[in-house]
Amino acid sequence: MAIRILNVNEQILSANDKLAESLRSRFKQSGVFVMNLMASPGAGKTSVILRVIESLSDKLKIGVIEGDITSDVDARKIEQANVDVVQINTQGACHLDANMILSAVDSLGLDGRGLVIIENVGNLVCPAEFNLGENMKVMVLSVPEGHDKPLKYPLMFTESKALILNKIDLLPYTDFDVDALKKTVLAMNPLMKIFPVSAKTGEGIAEFTEWLSSKVADVG
Amino acid sequence: MAIRILNVNEQILSANDKLAESLRSRFKQSGVFVMNLMASPGAGKTSVILRVIESLSDKLKIGVIEGDITSDVDARKIEQANVDVVQINTQGACHLDANMILSAVDSLGLDGRGLVIIENVGNLVCPAEFNLGENMKVMVLSVPEGHDKPLKYPLMFTESKALILNKIDLLPYTDFDVDALKKTVLAMNPLMKIFPVSAKTGEGIAEFTEWLSSKVADVG
Repeated sequence: MAIRILNVNEQILSANDKLAESLRSRFKQSGVFVMNLMASPGAGKTSVILRVIESLSDKLKIGVIEGDITSDVDARKIEQANVDVVQINTQGACHLDANMILSAVDSLGLDGRGLVIIENVGNLVCPAEFNLGENMKVMVLSVPEGHDKPLKYPLMFTESKALILNKIDLLPYTDFDVDALKKTVLAMNPLMKIFPVSAKTGEGIAEFTEWLSSKVADVG
Repeated sequence: MAIRILNVNEQILSANDKLAESLRSRFKQSGVFVMNLMASPGAGKTSVILRVIESLSDKLKIGVIEGDITSDVDARKIEQANVDVVQINTQGACHLDANMILSAVDSLGLDGRGLVIIENVGNLVCPAEFNLGENMKVMVLSVPEGHDKPLKYPLMFTESKALILNKIDLLPYTDFDVDALKKTVLAMNPLMKIFPVSAKTGEGIAEFTEWLSSKVADVG
């Protein structure tokens, strides 16, 4: 009998991909555009989502799926913006997977929705490995994290369609080099759209939401 | 025949704990104190280590083990401070484990060392689950990440003996509430030592390195 090697990681990813494909079909049938938003803890994912809601909720019926290991801190912030939100608590898991999204979508409902935003667990590593049936992955990097991050966490930077560079209001107080970041990122991912923004002041948000709107329109 | 349930995660953690115990004995025999430093990407782990080296390398023979998914960006910075450093590239894994440290320790050498600092992969989730035979885990949280992080990533905050609150030079430009952070952290982990510092300006570093020295002296 031949030796059987169980590569647990590959099995998990392959099972996830099958579920992600069924999610993808479901999103397509419902005509909803899904953005999977990823970043380190504290990079400002929730603040960016609140700015997107502010800009686009007149035009689109938005829904948000919040992923956290524990707590509903972020979901409460979204709820205050009068947008439907479902909180997933991963109970220790460091990323969302397609199975978690299946349950969340049932609870959120897709009828009439134009845009669903999934806020992944704060983590620059694991979330990039798991497809959630999304139309695109978008990442947030914040200025205080430093411009050397693409070299250290490459998968997130190659999987994402857009990079939101948040907290540019802090640029004067750090040695962050925007040009160096752009150069490194574009060498790894030449099609990456880069949006410097401040979710705090609102600077640069319009450029991102206009681009996001055009992506949603392409699908709808 | 009874059903056999393979809980892969538990098996991995149990195998890791056995290796961590053998590492712990080895560190003890060599009289070396080992600190496992954990944080989000960009919180300033390497900058804190460089400040510790600056303060303590006259008194202690320090060694550093750098953990990154890929790249040797951080190891090069440590090397420039004339300290022995070994770079571990985890090839995608989101945390260091005891097996990786075993190889690194062989390469670094423990003879005559007073302090070994392990810089874990930038991640506020997974590293907290894996013992590396260290004397203590210490975490860095940086001001721009926000004071709500303990609620969202509790394990790291309960596993750590000390919390270095870095980038306090950015306090005037953020809405970070230091008192709220302290209150939340101490409710979860009443024995946590909290050190507000700026690795950039050097403020608060002496308090941390004095405390670290006393811990090293207890072991040596």
